[in-house]
Amino acid sequence: MSHTLDIQNGVVEMSHGSGGRASHTLIRELFASHLDNPYLRQNNDNARFDAPPGSLVMSVDSHVVSPIFFPGGDLGALAVHGTLNDVAMSGAVPLHLTAGFILEEGYPLADLERIVMSMARAAKDAGVEIIAGDTKVVERGHGDGVFITTTGIGVIPPGSARISGDAAQPGDAILISGSMGDHGAAIMLARESMDFDHAIQSDSAALHDLIAHMLRIVPNIHCLRDPTRGGLATTLNELAEQSNVGMVIEESAIPIQPQVAAVCELLGLDPLTLANEGKLIAICPPDQAQTLLKAMRAHPLGENAAIIGEVTEADAGMVQLVTGFGGRRILDWLAGTPLPRIC
Amino acid sequence: MSHTLDIQNGVVEMSHGSGGRASHTLIRELFASHLDNPYLRQNNDNARFDAPPGSLVMSVDSHVVSPIFFPGGDLGALAVHGTLNDVAMSGAVPLHLTAGFILEEGYPLADLERIVMSMARAAKDAGVEIIAGDTKVVERGHGDGVFITTTGIGVIPPGSARISGDAAQPGDAILISGSMGDHGAAIMLARESMDFDHAIQSDSAALHDLIAHMLRIVPNIHCLRDPTRGGLATTLNELAEQSNVGMVIEESAIPIQPQVAAVCELLGLDPLTLANEGKLIAICPPDQAQTLLKAMRAHPLGENAAIIGEVTEADAGMVQLVTGFGGRRILDWLAGTPLPRIC
Repeated sequence: MSHTLDIQNGVVEMSHGSGGRASHTLIRELFASHLDNPYLRQNNDNARFDAPPGSLVMSVDSHVVSPIFFPGGDLGALAVHGTLNDVAMSGAVPLHLTAGFILEEGYPLADLERIVMSMARAAKDAGVEIIAGDTKVVERGHGDGVFITTTGIGVIPPGSARISGDAAQPGDAILISGSMGDHGAAIMLARESMDFDHAIQSDSAALHDLIAHMLRIVPNIHCLRDPTRGGLATTLNELAEQSNVGMVIEESAIPIQPQVAAVCELLGLDPLTLANEGKLIAICPPDQAQTLLKAMRAHPLGENAAIIGEVTEADAGMVQLVTGFGGRRILDWLAGTPLPRIC
Repeated sequence: MSHTLDIQNGVVEMSHGSGGRASHTLIRELFASHLDNPYLRQNNDNARFDAPPGSLVMSVDSHVVSPIFFPGGDLGALAVHGTLNDVAMSGAVPLHLTAGFILEEGYPLADLERIVMSMARAAKDAGVEIIAGDTKVVERGHGDGVFITTTGIGVIPPGSARISGDAAQPGDAILISGSMGDHGAAIMLARESMDFDHAIQSDSAALHDLIAHMLRIVPNIHCLRDPTRGGLATTLNELAEQSNVGMVIEESAIPIQPQVAAVCELLGLDPLTLANEGKLIAICPPDQAQTLLKAMRAHPLGENAAIIGEVTEADAGMVQLVTGFGGRRILDWLAGTPLPRIC
């Protein structure tokens, strides 16, 4: 009796979620073979490790992006990048990830393997390992291919300055690391099967190396956050509310790729509410802004970084956009659901 | 403009997963209000904490149990217990949990609140907190109500003996903490809407307190594992394979509740392959077995504990069952899918 999976032609079956023989075969031949590391090899339903000194940071994200494969990325890489970035926004060095998979009966094993290989590559590139995993299977029509929930853990080196969404101060400068809306626009195009002259790629990327570089040069950054679901508009509003400050943003200073702007105009969407998966917002004391900008631009993931505005004492909780004509409008939270299942 | 959720009559909407205003309202009014703790109040897409000295342990489980509410438990409590138990089986003291929710459009908010309240209660009873969370929404027909993926972290106190699935030694005694098959039988009955005289309750419970009690009295336990999916049969086979040992189990020594045995006979199922969610297997040196048994029986979650067999050098990787008539049969891994979505 052979227990070998037929990855090329096989599909996910209910027995792959039973916990019995079929589950073990799937885990060994598909998951463990690509994600292999000393922690998974402990084979203990849990992974034991030692952390370097410092405070710990954990973050979790469930990923349900549709379609699963899109220009510039896929569910697997996104599940690694998204959670690593949430950990890194505290200033922590990411250490490890765990991953829980919810598979739909009938999903092709070859596609599942592509996703797992992509996760393995993204984790390796980021210098982390997936140390524990779990796989469940739901009946056809009760899932949607593959959902992946990743939890990340990282460590904040002792003596680091505190980075938090409530730490923005009036006068602080607001920077972003690059163009806005790329991920949202790429997903939208992939979903609509639109034939567009200039393909738009998702910006999906792990940002911890950029952050480490920024903190080496400007250790007293006040806030870091990645403008994912809800985009720049929503994330700035979150930070303004949390720090109880106002913000004034120069619209013309926000980098937006021409093809993203064109797609948004065509479809009536605002690039400032579109998700990003490889960009960050940084808020720092005004006298550090130019130094931080230069540091960001020196890193491949920050080469289009820009100073986009400043924190104000007035109008607490409100984000105002100075438009091209010198007028001002409120930049509000995302309302409604222009683009579901973006990550 | 009111942002108040109508929890009694409302349902999950796609906008609750957008990351914008509606997501924030759902998180604040439904999740944060029940799970409230200082870590969630950091409001930072990540949670920062300090861990006591020792090695760290992480474990992840996705929970897709159907039905979501069942006698003796529900998805929310199970998602806490299942992951805490996987952490505790290393001998670790559980510290924290994270939770990723995948909600289906149209799911009643009142039911979601019941689940979240149950999680909150289970976590509080276990002395842990849910320090980070995430919520995604998928379209009607692409999910199944609610899926919850929990990741747990715990700490193994310095100087603890190593507990691992590969540490069983020939001659060791094999114990279990109580009756087998209760969770599987309870789910099965709930699913079949069978009218059965004696209601069967799931054994869903957090076992870390039982384990701490066991380790205080017998610090050199070799293996601990909870026989969840695949049941006692599969979990013993995992341990036999991992430790490269044989096992001989006395069938008559395995406690099985009469009503569970009756349901299994009726439906042609084997209680030894049914899932448990509040039981553990312990393997220890033979001269400690009686002491450990007594310790387990002194704890409410181990009062029906039993010594069920021993580890052998012969027949490595094989589990043999000594039947009521003195014969022997191979106790094999679970094959096929008698009972999908059990946890």
